Amino acid sequence: MSVDATRTSESSRSGLDVLRRAQCDCDPFLRDAIGSLNEPLATMGGYHFGWWDADKGGAPATSGKSLRAALVFGAARACGYRGDATPAAAAVELIHNFTLLHDDVMDGDSTRRGRATVWRVWGVNNAILLGDALHALAIRILTESLGQTAALSAIARLEQTCLDLCVGQHEDCAFERCMSVTVPDYLRMAAGKTAVLMGCACALGALSAGADATTVCALDRFGYELGLAFQIVDDLIGLWGNPAATGKPVGNDLARRKATLPIVVALSSTGEAAVELAKLYKSDHAMTQQEIVRAADLVEAAGGREAAQRYANERMHAAMTALPDSMKSSELVALAQLVIDRDK
Amino acid sequence: MSVDATRTSESSRSGLDVLRRAQCDCDPFLRDAIGSLNEPLATMGGYHFGWWDADKGGAPATSGKSLRAALVFGAARACGYRGDATPAAAAVELIHNFTLLHDDVMDGDSTRRGRATVWRVWGVNNAILLGDALHALAIRILTESLGQTAALSAIARLEQTCLDLCVGQHEDCAFERCMSVTVPDYLRMAAGKTAVLMGCACALGALSAGADATTVCALDRFGYELGLAFQIVDDLIGLWGNPAATGKPVGNDLARRKATLPIVVALSSTGEAAVELAKLYKSDHAMTQQEIVRAADLVEAAGGREAAQRYANERMHAAMTALPDSMKSSELVALAQLVIDRDK
Repeated sequence: MSVDATRTSESSRSGLDVLRRAQCDCDPFLRDAIGSLNEPLATMGGYHFGWWDADKGGAPATSGKSLRAALVFGAARACGYRGDATPAAAAVELIHNFTLLHDDVMDGDSTRRGRATVWRVWGVNNAILLGDALHALAIRILTESLGQTAALSAIARLEQTCLDLCVGQHEDCAFERCMSVTVPDYLRMAAGKTAVLMGCACALGALSAGADATTVCALDRFGYELGLAFQIVDDLIGLWGNPAATGKPVGNDLARRKATLPIVVALSSTGEAAVELAKLYKSDHAMTQQEIVRAADLVEAAGGREAAQRYANERMHAAMTALPDSMKSSELVALAQLVIDRDK
Repeated sequence: MSVDATRTSESSRSGLDVLRRAQCDCDPFLRDAIGSLNEPLATMGGYHFGWWDADKGGAPATSGKSLRAALVFGAARACGYRGDATPAAAAVELIHNFTLLHDDVMDGDSTRRGRATVWRVWGVNNAILLGDALHALAIRILTESLGQTAALSAIARLEQTCLDLCVGQHEDCAFERCMSVTVPDYLRMAAGKTAVLMGCACALGALSAGADATTVCALDRFGYELGLAFQIVDDLIGLWGNPAATGKPVGNDLARRKATLPIVVALSSTGEAAVELAKLYKSDHAMTQQEIVRAADLVEAAGGREAAQRYANERMHAAMTALPDSMKSSELVALAQLVIDRDK
């Protein structure tokens, strides 16, 4: 979802390299952690991470982006850390995936990364339990790594983030089919749902490096603003992205009457497109594919696409401003660029 | 559920006093913690704990037993601790209630403590989120209390317990309608579902007191064995208890074809009663009230009641044996007695 046509693909290629490296560094640790779970949780966990199919065989599927792990590693290195930030990176990925498992249950989403979600394969109960187990595993890992002071700070930070994620997810559910969501409502929800965990990832990288409170705070802010940009780009991809790249059905957000930023902006605008969109959005019936295409066009005509792209660029700018010059490593800059330039 | 008719009610009265004191000591701390959650989680949390009704008004309902908090306090005092074990007690209660919230969703239970369960009032999604939030809150509390070493040990211990609880709950769900559950299967499930958390409560009390590893381990074992006794007594109450006292519908376990110990023993016995019981258990239709009464009689006729009472007494004996003489405080002894003598 390129929001700036003048940009070359060079920086996003380098961002993808950073992601791949983070995944390579984190993967063996995560596999050990998931492997330590009792069955069937271990098999379910490996399936969710894309390591095998439901009967533990088959070619590996597309796994997650490891963006949060990459932020932990990038923040730690930007603080001059040469030690191993893998436990913190794995903990953040586990928390992220715990929330994905529970969100898929709550949202009734049947597909993730192009495959059936865990609740569809093993049932809702097991998906809830696996989410609970990944939450516990993430925290247990942090008790066994880092120094005592850093470990306790990291755990407190991560659990506060979980509390924020709960509120963000609650609002995301509550905003469905709600016609009066404002841009500030949206930003608060997106902060809870996405930005706090990306801020937390950067903070945990800094804590792993033994950084001082000011540095932890600056990196937290960088990740938080980047997280808002990430969520808005996600919203843009949800409406105008390529389903083959995202692994999610096209128009899902529209069909579910979600309050994503382009839609919120469009619905709160005036003019014919907004009126027609509101009518479609308020209807109770399942939208046809034709109606979904029409609704996406209406969101664009009502200015939702342009405004969301502008917001994403602003958050990206705020992220770069929050990052002290001494920490503008090529790694963090490449990750930030990727957040804006990605197509999935 | 008196399993020993020669016992006087004196000891259980004193056990109830210990519970009441634990609840008084823990309650203000828990109210502050729950009050720190964003809405609607704070209102839902207070409802679940029985402090108010769904619209935050009304007379308080029956709250939980606070047995796990009482074990934390009792274990800490048995180690000679005169400081404040409230944070550890509150953390254990929060973890216990997180699992209750998720278990009620998974089991589809509509009633807890005589009132509608949280998922029935606020929906499944909010019940899942509140459970997740209580999990996070419990751990965050531990990061802010105790010394660093004790806090990290307590967190690691509690998260390992959560992992065990996930496996126990998975087995409890998987054993429903399963005719081939053995007594060892049952004991493993009951350990994961109940005993580990009661062991953990005692261990956290000892950790709060700064006790050495041997002492922590002995108290853990005491709580664990007591937890097994507790679960078996729960099974007995589920079949022959008084629903007015328990707040749960009578015969629920039979209607759901749960694998509780009296039922497991009865189904694996030989004789006419076992055959008739198996026939009832295998049938697909919802049991009538008459069939439930008949099934309970058959469990008793097949020796399930007597065997379960014997197992409960054995676990109780093992708990008292695990407790070093210097720690046989009147408080812990009264709690142990209450586990066996309770009627709800």
